[in-house]
Amino acid sequence: MLISISEVLDADQLDLMRGFMGSLAWQDGANTAGRVARQVKQNLQADLSQGIGPKVERTLRQAITNHPVLKAAAHPARISKLLVSKTDAGGGYGMHVDNAFMTNGDEVMRTDLSFTLFLSQPDAYEGGELVIEHAGQTQALKPQAGDLVLYPSTSLHQVAKVTSGARIVCVGWIESRVRRADDRETLFDLINLKAALTPSHNDQSAEMLILSKVIANLKRRF
Amino acid sequence: MLISISEVLDADQLDLMRGFMGSLAWQDGANTAGRVARQVKQNLQADLSQGIGPKVERTLRQAITNHPVLKAAAHPARISKLLVSKTDAGGGYGMHVDNAFMTNGDEVMRTDLSFTLFLSQPDAYEGGELVIEHAGQTQALKPQAGDLVLYPSTSLHQVAKVTSGARIVCVGWIESRVRRADDRETLFDLINLKAALTPSHNDQSAEMLILSKVIANLKRRF
Amino acid sequence: MLISISEVLDADQLDLMRGFMGSLAWQDGANTAGRVARQVKQNLQADLSQGIGPKVERTLRQAITNHPVLKAAAHPARISKLLVSKTDAGGGYGMHVDNAFMTNGDEVMRTDLSFTLFLSQPDAYEGGELVIEHAGQTQALKPQAGDLVLYPSTSLHQVAKVTSGARIVCVGWIESRVRRADDRETLFDLINLKAALTPSHNDQSAEMLILSKVIANLKRRF
Amino acid sequence: MLISISEVLDADQLDLMRGFMGSLAWQDGANTAGRVARQVKQNLQADLSQGIGPKVERTLRQAITNHPVLKAAAHPARISKLLVSKTDAGGGYGMHVDNAFMTNGDEVMRTDLSFTLFLSQPDAYEGGELVIEHAGQTQALKPQAGDLVLYPSTSLHQVAKVTSGARIVCVGWIESRVRRADDRETLFDLINLKAALTPSHNDQSAEMLILSKVIANLKRRF
Amino acid sequence: MLISISEVLDADQLDLMRGFMGSLAWQDGANTAGRVARQVKQNLQADLSQGIGPKVERTLRQAITNHPVLKAAAHPARISKLLVSKTDAGGGYGMHVDNAFMTNGDEVMRTDLSFTLFLSQPDAYEGGELVIEHAGQTQALKPQAGDLVLYPSTSLHQVAKVTSGARIVCVGWIESRVRRADDRETLFDLINLKAALTPSHNDQSAEMLILSKVIANLKRRF
Amino acid sequence: MLISISEVLDADQLDLMRGFMGSLAWQDGANTAGRVARQVKQNLQADLSQGIGPKVERTLRQAITNHPVLKAAAHPARISKLLVSKTDAGGGYGMHVDNAFMTNGDEVMRTDLSFTLFLSQPDAYEGGELVIEHAGQTQALKPQAGDLVLYPSTSLHQVAKVTSGARIVCVGWIESRVRRADDRETLFDLINLKAALTPSHNDQSAEMLILSKVIANLKRRF
Repeated sequence: MLISISEVLDADQLDLMRGFMGSLAWQDGANTAGRVARQVKQNLQADLSQGIGPKVERTLRQAITNHPVLKAAAHPARISKLLVSKTDAGGGYGMHVDNAFMTNGDEVMRTDLSFTLFLSQPDAYEGGELVIEHAGQTQALKPQAGDLVLYPSTSLHQVAKVTSGARIVCVGWIESRVRRADDRETLFDLINLKAALTPSHNDQSAEMLILSKVIANLKRRF
Repeated sequence: MLISISEVLDADQLDLMRGFMGSLAWQDGANTAGRVARQVKQNLQADLSQGIGPKVERTLRQAITNHPVLKAAAHPARISKLLVSKTDAGGGYGMHVDNAFMTNGDEVMRTDLSFTLFLSQPDAYEGGELVIEHAGQTQALKPQAGDLVLYPSTSLHQVAKVTSGARIVCVGWIESRVRRADDRETLFDLINLKAALTPSHNDQSAEMLILSKVIANLKRRF
Repeated sequence: MLISISEVLDADQLDLMRGFMGSLAWQDGANTAGRVARQVKQNLQADLSQGIGPKVERTLRQAITNHPVLKAAAHPARISKLLVSKTDAGGGYGMHVDNAFMTNGDEVMRTDLSFTLFLSQPDAYEGGELVIEHAGQTQALKPQAGDLVLYPSTSLHQVAKVTSGARIVCVGWIESRVRRADDRETLFDLINLKAALTPSHNDQSAEMLILSKVIANLKRRF
Repeated sequence: MLISISEVLDADQLDLMRGFMGSLAWQDGANTAGRVARQVKQNLQADLSQGIGPKVERTLRQAITNHPVLKAAAHPARISKLLVSKTDAGGGYGMHVDNAFMTNGDEVMRTDLSFTLFLSQPDAYEGGELVIEHAGQTQALKPQAGDLVLYPSTSLHQVAKVTSGARIVCVGWIESRVRRADDRETLFDLINLKAALTPSHNDQSAEMLILSKVIANLKRRF
Repeated sequence: MLISISEVLDADQLDLMRGFMGSLAWQDGANTAGRVARQVKQNLQADLSQGIGPKVERTLRQAITNHPVLKAAAHPARISKLLVSKTDAGGGYGMHVDNAFMTNGDEVMRTDLSFTLFLSQPDAYEGGELVIEHAGQTQALKPQAGDLVLYPSTSLHQVAKVTSGARIVCVGWIESRVRRADDRETLFDLINLKAALTPSHNDQSAEMLILSKVIANLKRRF
Repeated sequence: MLISISEVLDADQLDLMRGFMGSLAWQDGANTAGRVARQVKQNLQADLSQGIGPKVERTLRQAITNHPVLKAAAHPARISKLLVSKTDAGGGYGMHVDNAFMTNGDEVMRTDLSFTLFLSQPDAYEGGELVIEHAGQTQALKPQAGDLVLYPSTSLHQVAKVTSGARIVCVGWIESRVRRADDRETLFDLINLKAALTPSHNDQSAEMLILSKVIANLKRRF
């Protein structure tokens, strides 16, 4: 299940973020990559531990964590620390697969889902598509600033070479309460169905009680 | 999931059946029981292979197989040969557990669900309750003639001693396409939800398409 | 698996509790309910954070946590904060399903099992049955004070309207190490079998070693 | 896993097929659809039981069954009867979901994967794309004649309205030995890896023995 | 779970078999091996389709199929056609892994367990051990004639080179109703426990009822 | 999967450890055993909380935690507190099964794997083999000092009676991220395959990308 979620950041939040970007301290992205990833990772990463950094992290995290579509699609048990990355002309991130487990503060989390929240408008850079491979199908995504692409961490993916301009994104990982992708899709369908029935059905109607029961029980079961 | 399904046989079919009962040949039920069951099984069983037998089997099988509630609750992959049993005063069937696998013609089937279709009216005999144990809860059932009790083969159960009259029932076993009881309940809930929404929603509406998709995909998944 | 466990509180503990009830501060139960539950929840809830509250919580928790039957039936990984609720005449708690996940202090727990420990004697109130629905079967329970009803959180359930008197209970939720209900029943059966064999079999006998091994390995497997 | 497999039929086989198409008897596709599908299915279906029909069925089945990429991606336990469908201008097949189980001769099969083998060149008709929905992503496919699109039966899909010309395809369903889509992808990856290593590694090398063992054991495990 | 089962054939049956061996027609074992296995398989195989062959097959199959320990350890759903193989000095069968699926008459079976029933006494040949590898552990087995070694088909295994004499064995494969090895071990333990308790416990005792219930329910569950 | 890992401690570390052993405080091992284990546990256990104890614990833990073969075979989520045990002549530890869950500091861990790291050379004591039972197979292990035996906690095992000398070992338990033994073996095989291919294949080669993807995805899946 690969979905694009529109306007996770609205225009005001985007403006705010763009203002902050100039004040962040940028480091070589290879510093935070493993041995293999380092060979293909060519970008800069913001130091979010100092200056305006923590505020940026907090604002982004809040927008992501509270988004109802992301909740319904991902059922997050844990959301990793966020990274803010800048890829200038000549940079990119070659084909790779995300590690299955990741240290996140004191604990280790499983990476079920990856996401990229685009902070630059697509016309601010050439190239730089997020390219995701599923068994022979390849999707190249370059959405609007403020949009978030949520995709399975199980895929091979890359950031195409940026040929001009700068691409700034926020990336992160999610450990889901629902381990299987097909089960997340079933829950997503049922939650959407419930939203569609809500205007015409009372919460205590037999239909809504059954649907609530099924959703709760499938959450437990999966 | 233990459910009683009303009127699997209607009044006419019951009359017909009662007429047939007199013409059936009855044998000691211990003949068709294993070593352990034989110690506790005290009833008679009809020979359905001759005379009016095959017609009785066919009529009962058709009523059971086509019942929509049974289909929605059991999702049968296989239904065993049917047995017609008569328990006279003094008889019964002590506490036991059904075998997990059962020879059924040329093949072996798993017994997920057991059922008893009552052919005698409850006032035609004293005692003879179908007693089913679930972890400390005990239910004693003695429904109307024509009703069918569907219950998990995983339970300990017995037929209480008949103290007067005669209790005639049809019993059988189902291998379900859906192995887990909780999953069968979820599908049962969703199929009931779909039935409830059908009068107010078009088959091609987004709601019905999602619901059909979820039901089909959960059938595959389970 | 729905079971009633007798005398989780003995007569002395019950007396003690009844004495404490008068000193607790009671609040509208709707305060601690979600949007949907609030529509159907009509009761009072004790503030266990102050005064005699923490002592009440501790006493109840200890009695529940240490009960051997509850341990064997539930295999708790986590037990939620306890609630003490009072339902006066006119109150009740309409049909609902418990949330699949629940915040419990710093962590989130899955609700596999719900329990109600009755603090009032059944003759102290009219109505107020705990009504639990399993696929068409409905059980209405009103046990002795001191008894605890343990039931799957996956069921639809309600507290019937109290028509006179007051019903005081303690309720809570359990996340089990054993997610499936049928697996909990199998473990419960084997633990009971081990208890039954203990008087006649040495711990180092081949029988007890095998049984201990199977129980330990099924705990890991489930 | 949605994949396009090129040239399942080569140019000669396509020529042969096109010649046969004129000799087939065509019937209203609604005849072979269920109540719901009938409302949205507007096409013709060839009668493959007579005349040149059985030969067409046999030729297509052989090409599909023996294709190594399809085997590696689908691990078929059963392949359904094939349908040859023609959609003329004005026809199409509205959004629907395939049934989870399907009668296939004497037995019932689960539909894990659906496939469409295109017999018409894309320039022979306008419209008529195979449109497949995965959780918000929509793919519209119109490949070359001879190509086969293999996609999960769990998706909502449709055939877009044909606005001119005629679209002829062969469709069918597969029950896979490997029920989960992610597991099929893992096996597909490992089989491709084995093919890549074969030129440089002896069958009895430690590397190939391990890889063969892992593939065999995952086939059993899944 | 690798177990040796003693005396699957008794002395009389072994004598009978040894007499038959001379009358069998022997073919190059490579004829019945796949491309890879052929490179390492150096033995002869009896033609069991003619002459004394069918009688040999029937006798061996009966002894294997009815053996209570094999039933309790393997829970066979299907047992493959049997092969009788002779390995003379210089022959052997190099390290390999058995195919996950195997054609068996009209159907395809999964190979969960492999077995070798030894027809020659260990002093009738030098070398020829059955060598089975589990993750670094290697076991070399050369049991008495009449004994059967049952081992997981998931292991890498070989027949060591025979340096003198002739090694005659019967080999076959089992598809188990219980797919996981650890689950088969749990059932094996419980069936052995039941056998151990049988002398001292009545079939209708609470202990035996619980144990029978658990065994039946775990068979269904696994 | 039972494996022996050689030289987890090298000669220098062993010398260091042997020096420390004399300075440790030893207590009756029965103190830290449950009711049943106490009946069969006859050894001494070092108090690692004081004096040289913490340093010994730290050194051993580091050697164990960082060993690449142990990581690839066990995929530890948690490693228990370590015990250092001394068994003098006459002592031993009778047949037992490890508890499925174990308190480890503030949390409870599942015991999937047990390990024994031998600190005494095998000629320093007679008897004292680590005897592990798998369904009828019994392995008696007495490896070199510095070697570690990793074995499933699901097995029955014992320490044979020591008849002379003293046997000093370090024991502990592992909760694995990969619950099933067969899945751990598959991952172990693939990690070994990756190590074998590394010298001849670039990290960004298609082969290595596929293999990395499969390993990461199976880690998530299991």
